[in-house]
Amino acid sequence: MNVAVVGGNKCSRKIYKVAQKLGELIASEGWVLICGGGLGVMEAACKGAKEKGGLTVGILPSFDAREANPYLDIKIPTGLDYARNILVVRAAEVIVAIDGRYGTLSEIAFALNEGKRVYGIETWDIKGTIKVKSPQEAIERIKRFMGTVAEYNSP
Amino acid sequence: MNVAVVGGNKCSRKIYKVAQKLGELIASEGWVLICGGGLGVMEAACKGAKEKGGLTVGILPSFDAREANPYLDIKIPTGLDYARNILVVRAAEVIVAIDGRYGTLSEIAFALNEGKRVYGIETWDIKGTIKVKSPQEAIERIKRFMGTVAEYNSP
Amino acid sequence: MNVAVVGGNKCSRKIYKVAQKLGELIASEGWVLICGGGLGVMEAACKGAKEKGGLTVGILPSFDAREANPYLDIKIPTGLDYARNILVVRAAEVIVAIDGRYGTLSEIAFALNEGKRVYGIETWDIKGTIKVKSPQEAIERIKRFMGTVAEYNSP
Amino acid sequence: MNVAVVGGNKCSRKIYKVAQKLGELIASEGWVLICGGGLGVMEAACKGAKEKGGLTVGILPSFDAREANPYLDIKIPTGLDYARNILVVRAAEVIVAIDGRYGTLSEIAFALNEGKRVYGIETWDIKGTIKVKSPQEAIERIKRFMGTVAEYNSP
Repeated sequence: MNVAVVGGNKCSRKIYKVAQKLGELIASEGWVLICGGGLGVMEAACKGAKEKGGLTVGILPSFDAREANPYLDIKIPTGLDYARNILVVRAAEVIVAIDGRYGTLSEIAFALNEGKRVYGIETWDIKGTIKVKSPQEAIERIKRFMGTVAEYNSP
Repeated sequence: MNVAVVGGNKCSRKIYKVAQKLGELIASEGWVLICGGGLGVMEAACKGAKEKGGLTVGILPSFDAREANPYLDIKIPTGLDYARNILVVRAAEVIVAIDGRYGTLSEIAFALNEGKRVYGIETWDIKGTIKVKSPQEAIERIKRFMGTVAEYNSP
Repeated sequence: MNVAVVGGNKCSRKIYKVAQKLGELIASEGWVLICGGGLGVMEAACKGAKEKGGLTVGILPSFDAREANPYLDIKIPTGLDYARNILVVRAAEVIVAIDGRYGTLSEIAFALNEGKRVYGIETWDIKGTIKVKSPQEAIERIKRFMGTVAEYNSP
Repeated sequence: MNVAVVGGNKCSRKIYKVAQKLGELIASEGWVLICGGGLGVMEAACKGAKEKGGLTVGILPSFDAREANPYLDIKIPTGLDYARNILVVRAAEVIVAIDGRYGTLSEIAFALNEGKRVYGIETWDIKGTIKVKSPQEAIERIKRFMGTVAEYNSP
């Protein structure tokens, strides 16, 4: 399963730690971490995931991989600038938003528009997102949701 | 100048009239109306613009022009589904959002993210948008803004 | 109907005249001219179309309208760089390619891949394109093709 | 380094084996295999890469991962249909084309247009591509090219 972590290119130390923890937990579940490949929240989540041996993918706005954070296994330069935000959303089954500004808001909106689950940690307060207090709670909720989906699909 | 009108595929009669009036005023200024080409707010704005002899452009999610509203001069089918939202935003100098749901929110977010002015009428309450009460006020504000820009750019 | 004219940003005087004539003829038929908005073949076709009072649309690679040729009624900046080529193709019912290099080849390939008719004047020799000797022949062929389609669709 | 393998969704048994061998060799070099995620040449290359423990990425045309071949580590659904072809090209440093039809031609054209190296095995005969006779020769040539680039960039 692919989980997208979305958030700003810049963030406080506190938010960085939250994102890093989230990355660790995603990797521990064996899920692939999808992000926009940049710094801040994206870098933190990738760092956490790599520390737990996870797989990280960065869908980059640029034409080359130079602006990527150093914790990416797979770099996908798109040359689409911020239009790549929608690709981050489409590439994942669920989205976790942490902090962030307008770019993050666009990802939340796109995800909800395409009927995807969005879990939010200290981010935009948009109707339809599922507010969670911690990375642990986000993972717990995602697992419960995926379990329900799996049960529903099994014979 | 290109002005984008963004809003939902469905809307109340009251909102329809607001969007139609906005379309009329945009056309009266000689501006090109850009939209997603669909129904609801998009159709209303195009209808208004055509009644005043304006030029209307619909950047459509589909591969063909069949899902377009009947008031479009130029139909641009993109085959990108809702990823076309960012094209609507990029095609315009300023954006006016009326009502709307997550698709509209994604357009507001993208526009603010790319540093564009967003005027909002009874729509999402997002920091950075300029709330206006009527189509007339939106036009008034846009003209003042463009005047400042023009002045700033003139020798 | 939308007709796309694709070709290089640079071209010889001879090719410029061919493209200009094609633009004139497209406008005379009342068709909308779609192009990438640039110089060379694109500029020539738009110039021709405007001389006959036609409507011209440029789907631009950039984020703003400054790199557009001066004969565009509608400028659609996309910020997608050459990925906008596929939008030029998708926006049109038929494509006419004149001269051109790899960008033009990508447009020919995309059009054929999506099952669209491509008429070629002194351009890439790709199986599936319909070679024509002049703008006049291109228009003649397009009219015959559209007639067949219309007949086929009429009750 | 990311290497894209492009080719048709359908292919002969002979071409399948060529693509599979290429996938094996790409994985043996420790390179990431990028492709469109589909069947035919794409599936074969992924199968080969997985047999050698490589990492495979499929940039899919659809909105979900169901149409992916079974040898993908990372599935990136885009919802852009064939517009995803340009993303396959942009995601890779070099491209190897095998067989294929118009979709493959669009990828060759885009790659050449963006100044990327394209190695071709029994595919479209387009000026600017580097014709090679076998997967082994393709790998040899890529290594030589990357060596030159690395040397050029080293102090």
